[in-house]
Amino acid sequence: MTRPAFDTTEEYEDKVTGWWRTGISRIRPGEILLRGYPVEQLIGEVSFAEMIWLLLRGDLPSPAQGRLLEAALVAAVDHGPQAPSIAAARMAATCGLGLNNAVATGANLLGDVHGGAGQQCMEILAELDHAVSQGTDLEAAARRLVADHRATKRHIPGFGHRFHPRDPRRDPLLDLTSQAVAAGEAPGWALRAGTALERALAEGRSRPVPMNIDGATAIIYSELGFAPELGRGLFVLSRSVGILAHAWEEKGSGTRIKGPLPRPLLPAYDGPDPRDLPPRGGGMT
Amino acid sequence: MTRPAFDTTEEYEDKVTGWWRTGISRIRPGEILLRGYPVEQLIGEVSFAEMIWLLLRGDLPSPAQGRLLEAALVAAVDHGPQAPSIAAARMAATCGLGLNNAVATGANLLGDVHGGAGQQCMEILAELDHAVSQGTDLEAAARRLVADHRATKRHIPGFGHRFHPRDPRRDPLLDLTSQAVAAGEAPGWALRAGTALERALAEGRSRPVPMNIDGATAIIYSELGFAPELGRGLFVLSRSVGILAHAWEEKGSGTRIKGPLPRPLLPAYDGPDPRDLPPRGGGMT
Amino acid sequence: MTRPAFDTTEEYEDKVTGWWRTGISRIRPGEILLRGYPVEQLIGEVSFAEMIWLLLRGDLPSPAQGRLLEAALVAAVDHGPQAPSIAAARMAATCGLGLNNAVATGANLLGDVHGGAGQQCMEILAELDHAVSQGTDLEAAARRLVADHRATKRHIPGFGHRFHPRDPRRDPLLDLTSQAVAAGEAPGWALRAGTALERALAEGRSRPVPMNIDGATAIIYSELGFAPELGRGLFVLSRSVGILAHAWEEKGSGTRIKGPLPRPLLPAYDGPDPRDLPPRGGGMT
Amino acid sequence: MTRPAFDTTEEYEDKVTGWWRTGISRIRPGEILLRGYPVEQLIGEVSFAEMIWLLLRGDLPSPAQGRLLEAALVAAVDHGPQAPSIAAARMAATCGLGLNNAVATGANLLGDVHGGAGQQCMEILAELDHAVSQGTDLEAAARRLVADHRATKRHIPGFGHRFHPRDPRRDPLLDLTSQAVAAGEAPGWALRAGTALERALAEGRSRPVPMNIDGATAIIYSELGFAPELGRGLFVLSRSVGILAHAWEEKGSGTRIKGPLPRPLLPAYDGPDPRDLPPRGGGMT
Repeated sequence: MTRPAFDTTEEYEDKVTGWWRTGISRIRPGEILLRGYPVEQLIGEVSFAEMIWLLLRGDLPSPAQGRLLEAALVAAVDHGPQAPSIAAARMAATCGLGLNNAVATGANLLGDVHGGAGQQCMEILAELDHAVSQGTDLEAAARRLVADHRATKRHIPGFGHRFHPRDPRRDPLLDLTSQAVAAGEAPGWALRAGTALERALAEGRSRPVPMNIDGATAIIYSELGFAPELGRGLFVLSRSVGILAHAWEEKGSGTRIKGPLPRPLLPAYDGPDPRDLPPRGGGMT
Repeated sequence: MTRPAFDTTEEYEDKVTGWWRTGISRIRPGEILLRGYPVEQLIGEVSFAEMIWLLLRGDLPSPAQGRLLEAALVAAVDHGPQAPSIAAARMAATCGLGLNNAVATGANLLGDVHGGAGQQCMEILAELDHAVSQGTDLEAAARRLVADHRATKRHIPGFGHRFHPRDPRRDPLLDLTSQAVAAGEAPGWALRAGTALERALAEGRSRPVPMNIDGATAIIYSELGFAPELGRGLFVLSRSVGILAHAWEEKGSGTRIKGPLPRPLLPAYDGPDPRDLPPRGGGMT
Repeated sequence: MTRPAFDTTEEYEDKVTGWWRTGISRIRPGEILLRGYPVEQLIGEVSFAEMIWLLLRGDLPSPAQGRLLEAALVAAVDHGPQAPSIAAARMAATCGLGLNNAVATGANLLGDVHGGAGQQCMEILAELDHAVSQGTDLEAAARRLVADHRATKRHIPGFGHRFHPRDPRRDPLLDLTSQAVAAGEAPGWALRAGTALERALAEGRSRPVPMNIDGATAIIYSELGFAPELGRGLFVLSRSVGILAHAWEEKGSGTRIKGPLPRPLLPAYDGPDPRDLPPRGGGMT
Repeated sequence: MTRPAFDTTEEYEDKVTGWWRTGISRIRPGEILLRGYPVEQLIGEVSFAEMIWLLLRGDLPSPAQGRLLEAALVAAVDHGPQAPSIAAARMAATCGLGLNNAVATGANLLGDVHGGAGQQCMEILAELDHAVSQGTDLEAAARRLVADHRATKRHIPGFGHRFHPRDPRRDPLLDLTSQAVAAGEAPGWALRAGTALERALAEGRSRPVPMNIDGATAIIYSELGFAPELGRGLFVLSRSVGILAHAWEEKGSGTRIKGPLPRPLLPAYDGPDPRDLPPRGGGMT
C-alpha cells in the first residue's frame, strides 16, 4: 500500500482521530462531557429542551429562552396520520421493523416540501430584517415580498394552511413570543417581520392568509437565534414524538403489512391493457 | 374492478377512514386535539418531555414522573462520534442530504444491538418482578438469572460498559429514582430488581459490572410504567438530539462525501489477487 | 489523550485501515478490482445479475445459475402501491426528497414481516433437507412440519397468498428450476423440499395453499446456494426496482405531501372527547 | 365528521382508489400485469436489467439498448468502504438491523453530493445539446460552459476524480457507447456533448480532467433517453448491489456496534474545557 506521508505515530494519530473531531462531547473512560459540562451535573438539573439547546448551541438557554423553545417543540408534535411522515411510520410499524426504523422512516420524509417550510420562512424573515437594517421600511419590504411571490405564483412558506382556516397553534405561540419581546427577553425582529408579512398578505383580501405552525415556529426559532437549517432540525425532533406515538399505536393494532387502503380496495390502474410479450430474438440480451 | 361489498357510502367511508383510525389526535378544520386536549391549551403549559408522555401514554404525567422522564431523556443524548448512529449521521450530512435525512439515517441504526439494550433490560426487570410476585426471593432470582446467562455466555443487557469502568450516568439516575421511590412517587419494583441484579453480577468478582445507561434508564422507564418496546422508542428520541447536533456540526465543517478514514488512508483488502476474467461463451447469459 | 499501544506507524496503520478491511473490492489510484477482476474487464461482459452474484459470492455464476438468478430477480420487482414499501416511497416522492431517499424509504420497510418470508422459507427448506440427510423421509418430515405449524397456529412462510388464489409467479419459476435440475445444473434438494411442503399443505384441504413468490424464489435462491439472509437481500434489490418506478411515477404527478387518503377524507378518531387541560401547579415541571 | 360531497359509492370509490392510481402494474386476484405484460410471460424471458427498463420506461428496450444499460449498471456497483454509503451500511449491519435496513441506510446517503453528479451531468449534456439545436457550435458551447464554471469556481459534474487520475470505467463505457452510435443504435448526441466537454476541460492544461464514472454513465443514460433524475435512480439501483455485498460481508465479521475508528482510538475533541454547571435558579425551566 502507498504509505501516507506521516512522520510519526503522533502525527498519524492526529490526522485519523482528528478526522472525527468534535466540539460537542468528549468521551473518555469514566467521563462524558457535553459541551464541557460533566453529564452527571446535567442529569436532573436541565430539562430535555434545555439539553437540546445545549447540544445545538454550545451553552444553556436563559429560562425565558428555554420556555419559548419548549413551546415551539410542543406545538408541532403531531398533525395526524394524513401526514405522509406519520402514515409511513405507521406502515413501517406493521412490517416487522423496530421502533427505531419506524421513526427513521417518518423523519426521513420531512424534506423540503413536508418539513422545510419553517426553514424557508426563517430565511425570508432574515431577508426582511436585512432589508430593514439597510434602511428599508418593514411594511414596504413585506408588501414587495408578497407582490414578488404573487407575480411568480409562489407561495410564501409559513402562511396559510390547506386545512385550517386559522391554525390554532398560531395565537398561543405568537402570544408567548410577544410577552418575551415585551419583557426584553427576545430581540423582537422576527416577530415584527413575521407579523408585517401577515399584514401584507391580508391586504385587499376578504379571506386573510394567517400564519401557520411553520411561520409561528420560524419566528420563535429566529428570535432565539437558531440558524434557518436548524429550524428544520428542531421540527424533526418535535414531529418525531408524534411519529413514535403513531408507530407505537399501530403496533398495538396487530395489523400486518398495512397498505394505504383497506384490503378490499385495489389501486386504480391506467397503464396499458393486457398484452403479450412480443417474440424475442434469442433469450435475454 | 371487483366491487367491494359496501352497501352505503357511509359504510364505505367508515371502512376507509377507519383504516387510518387513531386515538392520538383529531384534526379538523381549526381544531387540533392531542389526546383530547386542544393544542392551544398545551402550548406554553406543558414541557416537551410532558408532551412526549402525553402522546405515548394518553394523559399527562405527575410532576415527579415528568422529572424522572426528563432526567432519563437528558442522560442519553450523546456518546460521541464513535457510536455508529452518530458517525453515520455525520457522513450523511456531507452527502448533500437535509438534516431530516441525516437524523433518519442515525435513528435507523438504533436497532437491537445499538439501541435495544434498554428494552431488553426492561424485559428482564419485569421477569424478575414477576418471579417475586410468584413468591421467589428477589436476590435468589437475580443470582439464578446471572448464573443462567453466564452458563450460556450471554451478556445481561444494561450492565457493564465496553468503555467506562463505571458509567457516569448511573449514579445520578439511580439517585433520582431512589428519591422518587422514597417519596412514594414511583413504585420501586424496578429499582429493587435492577440493583439486585447489579449485586448478583458483582458477587465473587474483583471488578464489578456496574449498571450502564441502558440499565439505569430501563429502571426509570419501568418505574414510570412504559412498555419495554417504548424503552427503545424513548432512547431514539433522546439520541436523536445528539445525532442532530453532530450532523449540524459536520455540515459546518464543509467536508464533502466523508468516509470513515481521512483521504490518504485506504481500507485494507483481503480479497483475491488481481485476475483476468475467464473467456465467456457468448456474451451475457 | 491516552495513547494506544502501537509501536510503529505501520502497526498503527494496519489496525486502522484493517478496521475497514474488505475482500470485495480494492480501490487504488487508477484501479478498481471487484473480487479480483479489473472493473474494465467486467463492463460489457457480465450482466447486472451476474455482477450481483459476483459481489455477493466472490466469483461468477455459470450461465444456468445466471439465468435462474435473473428469473427470480425479475419476478419480484413489483406488487403495486397497496404494498407499504411502494406506498411509502410514493409518499416520500411527494415530500421533496431525492429518488435516493424515496428508494431508501421503501427498502427500509422490507423487514421481517414484509420482506422476510423468503428468508424464513429458505431456513425451513434447509431444515427439511437436513432432516432428509439424517435419514428422515421427506414427505413425512414435511407433514410433521405442517402439523407443528398448524398446532401452534403459525403460518408457513412462502405458501398461500392473501390476495392470489394461485400466485401467477409460481409456475414459471418452478418450471425453470425443474429444467435446471433435470439438466444437472442445480442440485434439486430445495425444489424437492418445497414441493413436498406444498403437497403436505394441500392434504385434506379442498382449497390448497400453493407456493407464493416468496416460496418459489426461496427454492431458487436455495438451489443456487445463497444463505437465507441473502434471500432477503436479493428481494430488496429486486423490489427496489418497483419502488424506484413508483416513486418516479409519483414525482411526475406533481402531488405534494401525499397522505394515504385523498384530501376530503379525515382519518377516524377514537381517542378521548375534547377536554380542558387541568389546572397545573406552577407551570412546567 | 364533515361528509365529503360524493354522490355515489362509485364516485367515492373512484376518488379513493384513484388517489393511488398507477400505470405501472395492475394487481388482481391471480393477475400481475407489469406495464401490460403478464408477469408469467416476463419471467425467464427478460433480464433483470430489461425489467428495470420496462418498469421505468413502459416498454422493453432493444437488445442494443439493453446491453448499454447492463454495462452502465455493472460499472457503478462499488467503490469500496471509503464511500460513506458503503461505510454507513456496514456500520448498520453491526447494529442488529436486517439487510433491508442496511441497504436503505446506504441508499439514503446517495444524495446530491454523493449520488447526484450523474444527474447533474445529464442536465449539462442536455443543455449543450439544446445549444447545438439552436445553431451554436458544440465545441464553442463546451468551451463557454467550462469557462463559466471556472469563473465561478464550480466543478463540472462528471469530470475529474479525487482519487483516480483516470477512472478505469471511462474507456470501456465510452467504447460501448461509440459502437452503439456507429451501429445506429444510439443517437450519439450525448456522446458528442460529453467528449466535447472533456476536450474543452483539457485545453491548456498539462493534466487533463478526464470523464469519470458519473460522466460516462450520464452519457449512456442520456443516449438511452432517460430523464436526468432517473440517472440518479439508476445509480441507486447499481450501488445498492455493492451496499448489500458490504453489509453482508460485515455481518459475517461478527463485529458489534462498529464505529468509524477501531476501539483504542478516540475522536479528537475541540470543545470547551471541563466546566461546572452554573447554579440554576429553581430547577428546570
